[in-house]
Amino acid sequence: MKDKLVTMAHGGGGRATSELVQAVFLPRLGNLELMELGDAAVLNLDGQKLALTTDSFVVSPPFFPGGDIGRLAICGTVNDLTAAGAVPLYLTVGVILEEGFPLAELKRVVASMAEAADEAGVKVVAGDTKVVERGKGDGLFLNTSGLGLLRNPPPRWSQARPGDRVLVNGPIGEHGAAVISRRSGFDLDSPVQSDCAPLNDLIGTLWEEGLGQHIRAMRDPTRGGVATALAELAARMELGIRVDESALPISPAVSGVCDMLGFDPLYLANEGKMLIVIDASVADAAVDLLRKHRYGAEAAIIGELTDEFKGVRVRTPYGGHKRVDVAEGELLPRIC
Amino acid sequence: MKDKLVTMAHGGGGRATSELVQAVFLPRLGNLELMELGDAAVLNLDGQKLALTTDSFVVSPPFFPGGDIGRLAICGTVNDLTAAGAVPLYLTVGVILEEGFPLAELKRVVASMAEAADEAGVKVVAGDTKVVERGKGDGLFLNTSGLGLLRNPPPRWSQARPGDRVLVNGPIGEHGAAVISRRSGFDLDSPVQSDCAPLNDLIGTLWEEGLGQHIRAMRDPTRGGVATALAELAARMELGIRVDESALPISPAVSGVCDMLGFDPLYLANEGKMLIVIDASVADAAVDLLRKHRYGAEAAIIGELTDEFKGVRVRTPYGGHKRVDVAEGELLPRIC
Repeated sequence: MKDKLVTMAHGGGGRATSELVQAVFLPRLGNLELMELGDAAVLNLDGQKLALTTDSFVVSPPFFPGGDIGRLAICGTVNDLTAAGAVPLYLTVGVILEEGFPLAELKRVVASMAEAADEAGVKVVAGDTKVVERGKGDGLFLNTSGLGLLRNPPPRWSQARPGDRVLVNGPIGEHGAAVISRRSGFDLDSPVQSDCAPLNDLIGTLWEEGLGQHIRAMRDPTRGGVATALAELAARMELGIRVDESALPISPAVSGVCDMLGFDPLYLANEGKMLIVIDASVADAAVDLLRKHRYGAEAAIIGELTDEFKGVRVRTPYGGHKRVDVAEGELLPRIC
Repeated sequence: MKDKLVTMAHGGGGRATSELVQAVFLPRLGNLELMELGDAAVLNLDGQKLALTTDSFVVSPPFFPGGDIGRLAICGTVNDLTAAGAVPLYLTVGVILEEGFPLAELKRVVASMAEAADEAGVKVVAGDTKVVERGKGDGLFLNTSGLGLLRNPPPRWSQARPGDRVLVNGPIGEHGAAVISRRSGFDLDSPVQSDCAPLNDLIGTLWEEGLGQHIRAMRDPTRGGVATALAELAARMELGIRVDESALPISPAVSGVCDMLGFDPLYLANEGKMLIVIDASVADAAVDLLRKHRYGAEAAIIGELTDEFKGVRVRTPYGGHKRVDVAEGELLPRIC
């Protein structure tokens, strides 16, 4: 690392974040569970397999179309546990408040958390509140940690092989587009809503219908978007991913925001989407199943694994290819 | 609650914090585990009893005599699990960095975390890093959550009865005094060091030597100090606690800082102390055992439970009494 000071890019979820983790955290705190760097750590506790995860939320602004920081914090942690193949059960919440933050807004955030926790069927069992002086924070920051029970069988990364399909449960880039449009003042005339939602019930249906054993890997494409998540999936599976751009579900509203502001929806954050790598033989059945759920109505197969190259290639509608990789620099600060 | 805005007192760990939790968090997020408001939530997961806890750390300054925010974060979470009667096993760390924070300082903090985790025998298995713009944070904030396995038997609050003794494992008020003296510039000529330490090994010896079954309750007296923790213990046990002021271990250095600056050591934060309520018949044996450990060398019996009154009364050396209660207002902001 050449940097001497923390930059916004270190929090972007892309290459700089990864370099920070590799250079500063892993050399000292490294252990088998942490080295996995999955959405959640998988732990063996007296024979029981648990998943444990943590996330801080500093989204700015805290209220945005389709959600707020409270809903985001609950859904983010539920989805991290879900991506690890776990059933989310218990959450903790740490709140860092800035002196002068309106209590009425805090109540709104807590109400959102409660509503999202109820929807996801998880319990907030422990909490902590700290206050910092005016000018030493930014309204409120949340941290949520979550504990879940690993499903049986869990996603089997080692079984990933060329031909496996990559699914997504709906249109991409909505959370990022919603926050950008709120920040830019576009939200008045733009209908983009954050997709912020708990996905444990949706993904649970795959196990209930016997498809869980065919799942190789999952990842929720938050900071850094689908592009970064796919690149990380490919790297960890040591295979390539071929994506068909025309198969990517993207709403006209998100396309509009991207065209106006020069963003690529592949790099915009999602907070209610899951990338699922699954055996080709059951991919269509999985899509059909996901489509029956409110959070999977526009589920689609977007690509497949290959051993012809490493990394991620996107086939454009005009027959060309573009490579995508983990996000570089600071695309969108404080998106979650 | 009459306040409309968050005040520093809401983060003090005393009455205002409790009112905030009662007014804002519990009405919406309340459930049996959260309502207990212990140092950690105790969960039943497929027959296994686990403890889960979370804490955010915003201590200012982040480096202080005897420790830093990294050691504090690990020890604080280890001690919360320990106080709940659990064996701490796995921790998560969420980091909120302010743009421009020196990476060399971050490395120091991470090294402290690693050292404290090694000492406590716990693993940091998951992490998250966010960055906020310059002026929207204060260097760095940490959140640690922890998972532990409940000891058998756990502390038995329901067995608490008049005559039970209250123990502390050493001199009180050291963390608070260390941070104050650093802030006031007194640390150059004052030898006060924070007591910041992981207590799981110390407390574990009580179980190893068969005294665990006699423990009624534990609490680590952090924000709000021994006074607040005793008041909370008394309230939850629905009994009174009589404290003998002359039995309270207080170092001359802490007394000095308190005399100079007008603080009461009973209200100063501790980060390496545990209050233990235990059956009178084994109290002396417990003190002897604690004294064999580096973190218990000055352990002492400081009081006993009574049904003659509710709350906490401190017997002064001159034969009088003073009542102590949970901290009011904002005594010492950002002490942990």
